[in-house]
Amino acid sequence: MKLLQERILQEGHALSDTILKVDSFLNHQVDPKLMEEVGQAFADYFNDHGITKVFTIESSGIAPTVMAALKMDLPMVILKKQASKILDGNVIQTEVHSFTKGLDYQLTLSKNYIDEDDRILIIDDFLANGEAALGAARLVEMAGATVAGIGIVIEKSFQPGRGLLEEKNYDVYSLARLAKLGVGNIEFVDGN
Amino acid sequence: MKLLQERILQEGHALSDTILKVDSFLNHQVDPKLMEEVGQAFADYFNDHGITKVFTIESSGIAPTVMAALKMDLPMVILKKQASKILDGNVIQTEVHSFTKGLDYQLTLSKNYIDEDDRILIIDDFLANGEAALGAARLVEMAGATVAGIGIVIEKSFQPGRGLLEEKNYDVYSLARLAKLGVGNIEFVDGN
Repeated sequence: MKLLQERILQEGHALSDTILKVDSFLNHQVDPKLMEEVGQAFADYFNDHGITKVFTIESSGIAPTVMAALKMDLPMVILKKQASKILDGNVIQTEVHSFTKGLDYQLTLSKNYIDEDDRILIIDDFLANGEAALGAARLVEMAGATVAGIGIVIEKSFQPGRGLLEEKNYDVYSLARLAKLGVGNIEFVDGN
Repeated sequence: MKLLQERILQEGHALSDTILKVDSFLNHQVDPKLMEEVGQAFADYFNDHGITKVFTIESSGIAPTVMAALKMDLPMVILKKQASKILDGNVIQTEVHSFTKGLDYQLTLSKNYIDEDDRILIIDDFLANGEAALGAARLVEMAGATVAGIGIVIEKSFQPGRGLLEEKNYDVYSLARLAKLGVGNIEFVDGN
């Protein structure tokens, strides 16, 4: 997505070989018009995937995902990050490790908002090691439903996330794919 | 807002005198079309308030707020809940107590995304004791900017939040005002 790549080049800050700060339009300040375009791009790509619901993980994925869900005329579900297990038979949980924060959390979904016939699109802001997306996919499959696609705003293609998701045959669609990061240097995967 | 009141009556669950669960359209599963209507309602009301940015608090406020910001053609800023103080001169923080979760957090804003000329609209999903909204307003004023309005999706009018915000002369606009809750019973403030 050209518009997104341009914003990353103009406003993104590569702080290291692995950290890209996009606080001015995606993670702290958010550009709603760009989010609308991002949502439309996901809607266009996943239009023929028979999606029934769009899932995301709190909290940076919510803005692009609610726009995608609006464009697709589908409900959104926000998977919650709980510090500990909930003793309530009505939720499904799976443990996810956050490399960014250096801690584990219980990704949590109420059974009320998924059933076996659902075909779920999972959207997140970043894909790096794939822990969050794999956790979301596990929850969907624990509920007996189908992961019909994974949409990523910014993919760090030099980290293992995409490979791990493709091993499971998920259809991964990323709007911007970073080939390489370095202090003051941002390179995209050719042709994306 | 009639559409919102109807959804609250149809799908809301009053679990006690103070707790209303609206997990099916606002807090866990989210209805994007309803969020669009909510965003439009805020945009209509605050249209003549000279707003320059729309702030919310992660994470349940993000979906309605990004829609309001889109309709108003303004940037959104997501105030972060940090567990502890950040030793970085570029952020402003204030301590907020969460009655729901029974803990304190540091509400955090980067100085990059506010300046003294800003007129800020603060939007949140719920208003009860007012701790989160008052904390957001403190951050805005610590930065030397102006709180130009506060938009609330669901106000518990029987709790002290609105009174505390009105004492400070903020213009508080709530789309649904709950007069009373009880197990299985939901009553709105007359005329709203």
